[in-house]
Amino acid sequence: MEKDLSQKPYALILAGGSGTRLWPLSREEMPKQFLALCGDEKTLLQRTALRLIAVTDSERLRVVSSGKWKALVSHQLLSIGMRGDFIIEESEGRNTAPAIALGMAQLLLSGASPDDTVLVCPSDHMIMDEENFRQAVRVAIGAANDGNLVTFGIKPTKADTGFGYIKTSHNTTPWLVAEEFVEKPDLATAKNYVESGDYYWNGGIFCFRLSDMISAFETHFPEGASIFGAEREHIGSHFLSAPKQSIDYAVMEKARNIACVPLDAGWSDVGSWDSVYENSPKDKKNNASTGDIFLSGGGDNLIIGSDRLICGVDLDSMIIVDTPDALFISPKGSSQKLRDVVKALSDAGRDEVTESPMSARPWGTYRVLSKGDRQKIKKIEVVPGKRLSLQYHVHRSEHWIVVKGVARVTICDHGENTQGKEIFVHEGESVFVPKGKLHRLENPGKIPLEIIEVQIGEYVGEDDIERVDDDFRRTS
Amino acid sequence: MEKDLSQKPYALILAGGSGTRLWPLSREEMPKQFLALCGDEKTLLQRTALRLIAVTDSERLRVVSSGKWKALVSHQLLSIGMRGDFIIEESEGRNTAPAIALGMAQLLLSGASPDDTVLVCPSDHMIMDEENFRQAVRVAIGAANDGNLVTFGIKPTKADTGFGYIKTSHNTTPWLVAEEFVEKPDLATAKNYVESGDYYWNGGIFCFRLSDMISAFETHFPEGASIFGAEREHIGSHFLSAPKQSIDYAVMEKARNIACVPLDAGWSDVGSWDSVYENSPKDKKNNASTGDIFLSGGGDNLIIGSDRLICGVDLDSMIIVDTPDALFISPKGSSQKLRDVVKALSDAGRDEVTESPMSARPWGTYRVLSKGDRQKIKKIEVVPGKRLSLQYHVHRSEHWIVVKGVARVTICDHGENTQGKEIFVHEGESVFVPKGKLHRLENPGKIPLEIIEVQIGEYVGEDDIERVDDDFRRTS
Repeated sequence: MEKDLSQKPYALILAGGSGTRLWPLSREEMPKQFLALCGDEKTLLQRTALRLIAVTDSERLRVVSSGKWKALVSHQLLSIGMRGDFIIEESEGRNTAPAIALGMAQLLLSGASPDDTVLVCPSDHMIMDEENFRQAVRVAIGAANDGNLVTFGIKPTKADTGFGYIKTSHNTTPWLVAEEFVEKPDLATAKNYVESGDYYWNGGIFCFRLSDMISAFETHFPEGASIFGAEREHIGSHFLSAPKQSIDYAVMEKARNIACVPLDAGWSDVGSWDSVYENSPKDKKNNASTGDIFLSGGGDNLIIGSDRLICGVDLDSMIIVDTPDALFISPKGSSQKLRDVVKALSDAGRDEVTESPMSARPWGTYRVLSKGDRQKIKKIEVVPGKRLSLQYHVHRSEHWIVVKGVARVTICDHGENTQGKEIFVHEGESVFVPKGKLHRLENPGKIPLEIIEVQIGEYVGEDDIERVDDDFRRTS
Repeated sequence: MEKDLSQKPYALILAGGSGTRLWPLSREEMPKQFLALCGDEKTLLQRTALRLIAVTDSERLRVVSSGKWKALVSHQLLSIGMRGDFIIEESEGRNTAPAIALGMAQLLLSGASPDDTVLVCPSDHMIMDEENFRQAVRVAIGAANDGNLVTFGIKPTKADTGFGYIKTSHNTTPWLVAEEFVEKPDLATAKNYVESGDYYWNGGIFCFRLSDMISAFETHFPEGASIFGAEREHIGSHFLSAPKQSIDYAVMEKARNIACVPLDAGWSDVGSWDSVYENSPKDKKNNASTGDIFLSGGGDNLIIGSDRLICGVDLDSMIIVDTPDALFISPKGSSQKLRDVVKALSDAGRDEVTESPMSARPWGTYRVLSKGDRQKIKKIEVVPGKRLSLQYHVHRSEHWIVVKGVARVTICDHGENTQGKEIFVHEGESVFVPKGKLHRLENPGKIPLEIIEVQIGEYVGEDDIERVDDDFRRTS
């Protein structure tokens, strides 16, 4: 008997964004959606996925993201139990309208019906009150099935000039009519909006029937509508031909059938360290802290530690964010200046803005423990059953020491048959990979493989790597 | 022809002190005298030695210190060019009177004449104006040769209640008469002292003829005087039998022939982070910073970095001290509370109060790069010609990877002849030391040997070590 999923929506998580507003925790290579914030042990992406799985089935969930985040998305969602082919890959970032259209087109190709509803959520926002969110989703699905394009209106908690607003009016329905989308207002206008009670923040969460959104694209954004009904192999080129526009600008601001479902559920875009502080659990002194923190005197601080002890005396209203390679300290209220600081660091060519101490790869993760002129030390974790590509380095030798699990290591010369060149390396043992030798690392076991890699050489940059396939053809 | 050193004084540096007032830079295992502070590339001990070498000859310089600092003292003073047997070892800390007597007794045994003058200096103070110091030393030697016990009086820069004061009166001599030593006064008294112009801080720098100080000991501190004239092998027991008293209390406050030579030379005891700030060079925004620091807005900060980027926005009058395993942050003016905080951390058994990320040993130094439950990674530097003891570990295997230089490594079984079990390990190569195997590391070369050591095991504490001699007898 066919499983009846007809009342359950599909869900698209938009996870292609990048940004460094929470530097040094967020990096160009580690955007906000992949971070665990505000005392949560789950990342914003994981929490978003879990929130959506609670209103639909995990097999109806897709993540639209860039190829460069594929390993991170996969790593984080596999670890909360998601399975299957849930990533829809954008070949480049083209703003939300093309991203949503790409996701919709892929859903249709994989069996969704035009009558199915779709929930669209950003991957990097917080919602504290999950029950209120689920209640709002139920209302939104009703509104969508009534032919509306639904936007969730975040109940404003203050006159914030950083958000767009939605002007609403009441109707006989359980949802509101969205009268108008308004751009980021000045402070006086924002105050009026909040006092009126008719205005909501535009939080980028949407719900609609596929057929209704396709019609809206055809009417208001026809340049982006050609992707619907395209054959699978042409989806990519249709995506690339769509103008880079937001779904708000391309469709929502122009369509007439827009409903607004109020959402009063502790929403935050966690777009600054001040906002992370506001949304974090606090101790009796109003300190929000994670890590190995010892405080004496003072209060109202946000302190995020990494692997070292942080000792603060008489600190008041400070933001302290420690990472293995960069430390940020600022009074609260100044964290908005971070943008300029990060730009200055980026202009100075600082690695700390782009590279992340923790990196995800299709085979697992690695963390840089120590860097020097002639050496680099990494902790590498390889997922059971995964392996790194066959590769060699011109400038460095590598020493692999197994901390946990078992490694299958292939070391051979160029042109040599790799078969029979495999050795097993167990806990506490090590293996030496000389400069220039082809080598491959693999976890043949059932538990994660942890190794310490010590690179020694006259150059230890990440770009000294040549990957080859088993026929010794270069693959990069 | 005999070298005429008759007019040059001997010098005793007192370097046995410990303390954590500059935590986390100073640790129980790394007291202040071994730190480079206030933008100086030399440590306080090195700077003290260089200052004294400028007024005498380095072969007349001795350092009185505890056995536990012997490797650090040796390492730091060899690196500024000192040679020979300059360390006089205290078997335990017994305050300054026994320490000075021990130094004097050793000088007499190594050929000093009772008519020779001796300069005594703490190892952990700063003196900015070296020329004024040298000028004061010239006056002090004159006063000593006139039969006085000379104390240097630090010209007070403020009504500080943390120092003892010396009341002086003028004489026809180029030096002053010390009328009275007074204990740490209250603030009102300190203000009166400073305004009067007759009072000086007692900075613990002394100058005297050996014969005069021996007489003073015999008269005022006879329990500590038995060491003079004792045979070499009995020096240690005489030292241990002397009461634990300061030279001020034991002798200076009681003797009548005390001269005071004013010292107006930018002296500081650098006894707090505020004091380090005051004595550090500053930029246009009055920030004193060392390390990889990026500041935007604010000013008047003391920021001491280690190996990571520190980025501060709108920081005002803050103290930030970063080390590999501990970070301290406080507003200026609160740094005196550090004592209580360090005590609390110590009571909680925190390693960060006792252990230092950098440790010195007779054979060189090591630095902990990374610690985990099952692994510890160190960077080890072995001085040319030095070797570590033959040893083994019960719980861990060790992997040595040579970054620079060449290592001679012995690995053998218990009871086995070590000869012929040596291998040479060159740059980029590694060697594996299994659990339980006897091993020894040696630098046979002419340049420092740098290695990365990766320890893997179920226990990686420093105390899992058994040292043996070449006949396989345990030596520890």
